[in-house]
Amino acid sequence: MPFKFDLITTDPTGARAGRVTTPHGEIETPFFMPVGTKAAVKALTPEELRALGAQIVLSNTYHLYLRPGHKVIEALGGLHGFMNWNGPILTDSGGYQVFSLGKLSKIDEAGVRFSSHLDGTPLVLTPESAMEIQESLGADIIMVLDECTPHPATHDYARESMERTHRWALRCKEAHAGAERANYQALFGIVQGSMYPDLRVESAKAIIDIGFDGYAIGGLSVGEEKAQMREMCALTAAELPADSPRYLMGVGTPEDLVASVEAGIDMFDCVMPTRNARNGTLFTSRGKLGIKNALFERDNGPLDSECSCYTCANYSRAYLRHLFIAGEMLSSRLNTIHNLHYYTGLMASMRQAIKAGEFAGFKSKFLARLEEGVK
Amino acid sequence: MPFKFDLITTDPTGARAGRVTTPHGEIETPFFMPVGTKAAVKALTPEELRALGAQIVLSNTYHLYLRPGHKVIEALGGLHGFMNWNGPILTDSGGYQVFSLGKLSKIDEAGVRFSSHLDGTPLVLTPESAMEIQESLGADIIMVLDECTPHPATHDYARESMERTHRWALRCKEAHAGAERANYQALFGIVQGSMYPDLRVESAKAIIDIGFDGYAIGGLSVGEEKAQMREMCALTAAELPADSPRYLMGVGTPEDLVASVEAGIDMFDCVMPTRNARNGTLFTSRGKLGIKNALFERDNGPLDSECSCYTCANYSRAYLRHLFIAGEMLSSRLNTIHNLHYYTGLMASMRQAIKAGEFAGFKSKFLARLEEGVK
Repeated sequence: MPFKFDLITTDPTGARAGRVTTPHGEIETPFFMPVGTKAAVKALTPEELRALGAQIVLSNTYHLYLRPGHKVIEALGGLHGFMNWNGPILTDSGGYQVFSLGKLSKIDEAGVRFSSHLDGTPLVLTPESAMEIQESLGADIIMVLDECTPHPATHDYARESMERTHRWALRCKEAHAGAERANYQALFGIVQGSMYPDLRVESAKAIIDIGFDGYAIGGLSVGEEKAQMREMCALTAAELPADSPRYLMGVGTPEDLVASVEAGIDMFDCVMPTRNARNGTLFTSRGKLGIKNALFERDNGPLDSECSCYTCANYSRAYLRHLFIAGEMLSSRLNTIHNLHYYTGLMASMRQAIKAGEFAGFKSKFLARLEEGVK
Repeated sequence: MPFKFDLITTDPTGARAGRVTTPHGEIETPFFMPVGTKAAVKALTPEELRALGAQIVLSNTYHLYLRPGHKVIEALGGLHGFMNWNGPILTDSGGYQVFSLGKLSKIDEAGVRFSSHLDGTPLVLTPESAMEIQESLGADIIMVLDECTPHPATHDYARESMERTHRWALRCKEAHAGAERANYQALFGIVQGSMYPDLRVESAKAIIDIGFDGYAIGGLSVGEEKAQMREMCALTAAELPADSPRYLMGVGTPEDLVASVEAGIDMFDCVMPTRNARNGTLFTSRGKLGIKNALFERDNGPLDSECSCYTCANYSRAYLRHLFIAGEMLSSRLNTIHNLHYYTGLMASMRQAIKAGEFAGFKSKFLARLEEGVK
């Protein structure tokens, strides 16, 4: 089944509900993608992800390119079979991790030269190789190579970086168009432009002109103020075509997700629920909770009395605190289950509210609950 | 339901099949107890343990005494509720870890003075406190405090250590007899005697004279040769009453389990399947396999083509190798599932062979398969 997006309804606030169709199944929008960096969402099995309501998983091209290598994964039948997840998968281009993890040597028109953070091997990533690698991995949705413009950036650098990103986007589209897998791998473009409204608008138009299956907003949540992030997100989203999915990359907190859905975003990914889980920070209907807190030493209650996840149904805060302090892997696992359940549950609640045309009411209740604080 | 042991059948070889009844359910013997050191079998949930055929879990008193503290666990309703495992639990006395992990200060008639390996806190473990701690934890089977005689030991020291162990065993029995929980917590004695047959026989008699719900063989697998371990096990087991369960502590390899069952042992515990899993060593019907081996880089087959575990049903050697090398927690988890499935499956096969009176045949086939080696 080829890639397709159906917009089902738009709430009075601008929040959208729809459906993405991929060769590996349908996804209700708006949705959150758990991050499976190295072909595994840390500590969880695919069955658990499915049971948690995860509809799609994101995996990182940079990590898989380095280890075990995209050719190995291709030889084993692609990422779906390799990681035993037969639902939809999105891979990023690898560019973001080259900039954040690799030792960057040079960025020029051709692409990016960098050294592996694992063993220092000198490597190159170009728009063409980013396509080739992602084609080998075989995800349902793949991303163009872009430069996530560092923050803060001068207007001049932001323009230079953005324009190169546009040229790379075109090369990605051309490279992928010739690929055997082009029919069933959707390709998304990425809008950059740093924190400059004029560049954001210009970038959106340029990327739309090239034409992609979906449009991502990159370069946000890079250190700017929340208000600025939300302003950039909203003004960029407003430029994007209504009949394509909109993906806000690498964002964010529960409050960010709610604000961005209101701005018309359909897709999210972030390491926050999974990474925070491993660090002992849990999301609840009344805000965040640090499980290490001595207050919980003899607390026989669940993390969140309103949560229906496996962890809350079976384990006390006291036990979860013990597992965390003792460094038990089960701690990461139970915490990850809880946090992902929170994120997927939040997305499901938003979809429901949008379909009922009640997103504004949902949002105010959601924020009011968060402000009550954890008891 | 009070503690009970029913011997169902004894195979011509001497291998026994029976049933242990505890307040938290029945256990078919012979059985293997996965080790949940800190109130969790590393990386696994209780539901997974149950599905893997684990009938009982062992937890370590020393670790729980240090953290979170037995009084905390008691206040939360005991170990069963704390760790969400409502099947049978056995706790050790804490003595073994005091000797192996704690910084030992002094061992004398009163008990053991040591420092916590976590923060250096000076602590004392006596026969009476070992009972009190285990009573707070609330396991179905608890163990007397003993000294696991270091190896090698002179005959003189082995006797001195053994005799103190006997006096401690009596004090444990007396202390536990007065406990509120005595009715539903079975207490096992431990036979010591180092590698001296005369002492082993003497120790068995002394411990039987005191009288316990079951009898453990301690002080083996401490560095001696395999042949010596098996000799000591067999001659000690032969001294133990047929109508009580026999527990060989801390042993061992699959071959050890088979040899010891033949010697009439009913119960085992060992960190080997779980620890090896985390270190990337997997047990298969044809021997051990190191998952890190480059041979498996593109091997799309399962760990063991004859294994029916979740891991073998869903993941390739190549993926498991990738997860291990990438340091993913899912590696530990999938490997632990496989290794525990191997151990519980081996025990189930032995129970079946014993009931059919075919243990000798089972054993020769088992050993012949192991010798084929992993392909």
